[in-house]
Amino acid sequence: MIVIGSGAAHLMEEIVRAGVELANVEIKKFPDGEKYVRVLSSGEEATVIQSMYKPQDENIVEALILGDALRGRGFDKLRLVVPYLAYSRQDRVTKEGEPVSVRAVMKALGIYYDELYVVDVHNPRTLRFFPGKAANISPARAISEYFREKLGEGIVLAPDKGARERAKAVAERLGLEFSHFEKRRISPTEVRMRPVDIDVEGKNVLIVDDIISTGGTMIKAANLLREMGAKRVFVAATHGVFAEGAIERVGKAVDELAVTNTIPTPVSRISIVHDILGL
Amino acid sequence: MIVIGSGAAHLMEEIVRAGVELANVEIKKFPDGEKYVRVLSSGEEATVIQSMYKPQDENIVEALILGDALRGRGFDKLRLVVPYLAYSRQDRVTKEGEPVSVRAVMKALGIYYDELYVVDVHNPRTLRFFPGKAANISPARAISEYFREKLGEGIVLAPDKGARERAKAVAERLGLEFSHFEKRRISPTEVRMRPVDIDVEGKNVLIVDDIISTGGTMIKAANLLREMGAKRVFVAATHGVFAEGAIERVGKAVDELAVTNTIPTPVSRISIVHDILGL
Repeated sequence: MIVIGSGAAHLMEEIVRAGVELANVEIKKFPDGEKYVRVLSSGEEATVIQSMYKPQDENIVEALILGDALRGRGFDKLRLVVPYLAYSRQDRVTKEGEPVSVRAVMKALGIYYDELYVVDVHNPRTLRFFPGKAANISPARAISEYFREKLGEGIVLAPDKGARERAKAVAERLGLEFSHFEKRRISPTEVRMRPVDIDVEGKNVLIVDDIISTGGTMIKAANLLREMGAKRVFVAATHGVFAEGAIERVGKAVDELAVTNTIPTPVSRISIVHDILGL
Repeated sequence: MIVIGSGAAHLMEEIVRAGVELANVEIKKFPDGEKYVRVLSSGEEATVIQSMYKPQDENIVEALILGDALRGRGFDKLRLVVPYLAYSRQDRVTKEGEPVSVRAVMKALGIYYDELYVVDVHNPRTLRFFPGKAANISPARAISEYFREKLGEGIVLAPDKGARERAKAVAERLGLEFSHFEKRRISPTEVRMRPVDIDVEGKNVLIVDDIISTGGTMIKAANLLREMGAKRVFVAATHGVFAEGAIERVGKAVDELAVTNTIPTPVSRISIVHDILGL
């Protein structure tokens, strides 16, 4: 049985079309701002789908009280599927005194949920903070299918070495070559990016990352690819955490910008519903 | 060492005046809505003060990531003082399928905190959901001192039987009589309130409750007391969770409405800072 939280309401129509059994759940907000939930269905196992974009803290707390209600209703096994996990980038102490905020979120979710599935979590090593079974859901199927025809005999690039595995997974599904950009400091004030060991001239290129926020790196990469003679340049990301104006700025610099629907945005044209229901 | 969360920022000035050692903490919000905290002080024991009124879910999550940062900084013993605890009224399953939301909050806070102190928690039995030591902080000292002179030889009333202990605690500090209102259904459509076994004629009366939201009960009680010949009518509550327009409506019906500063409101004239620092 599937329970759809407020943060996944934008996925409901497609989930209904997929024909899975939806729980009957009431979710509202009291005038003082507190969330109220009520689970009217009963059963033994339930999968809560809750995405945690803004207002992320409300979506986190809602997942907790949904878990409490489901336990109280007698559900025995609870899975949580998180299309976008809040605080996933606060995954390490960069400056002394900082929290590992994603650890706090994972631990809190572990109070009620036995299993956690996160779509393209920023740092897969953080899944170990969840006390139960935790796994990553790859966006590679969804992204590669969306760009298969547009890309044709093109190549796939990661904007940096850390994003290489995602680009590789997409490229392998398409049977294409892949690589990543490296940054080299060429003077005290100038850093130059370049794609490593791959020829872009005359080719369609898809750059893939997990999160786009300002889009600055993507724009630089796209401009560089044009200078190097690339044909069409596409940008994809799993999570569109766009800063003000970023969609327009990136959109202008590339042939197409598309992200998945883990977060609803005007360019969330790639659906991961198939992947999260395929558990 | 005291750490002041965003929800207790309105208490900072008074806490500083009390001369306690404040931790150096940075709290801000990223553009995507995620909270960022950083603890610059170090030590062994810390007391976080965090009130959880609107936006309550942000204040809950902030308390968690502050806890994570403090543990990472090496703090060994963490206390959490919560002037107003969110979800404290969702303390039981009234309709099947509802959560006990306050349980979810208490359990999550228990991940990082060893001890929990809540000012006038709605249902003291809910403190048992916290895994560590948990205790209630009474508002009786603060409320009784504030009304001592105004009330003179008056009486103290609880708006219902459930609020009687709070009224008793205030009355005993003032050496005054106390009682409570009871509600009696006098016809299928009419319920009448009356104060039980106490004479109000010619007396100043203080009605004390834990939370005022719409203020409807308080207004009915105040009007009834006037009809019965009470002299001055005062209304006090610990937590001013006021609905739109409630302050004005209650204010018009009584000689004075005052609540404590667990939540900052225009009538939060009663300070509980002395009580929360006296731990």
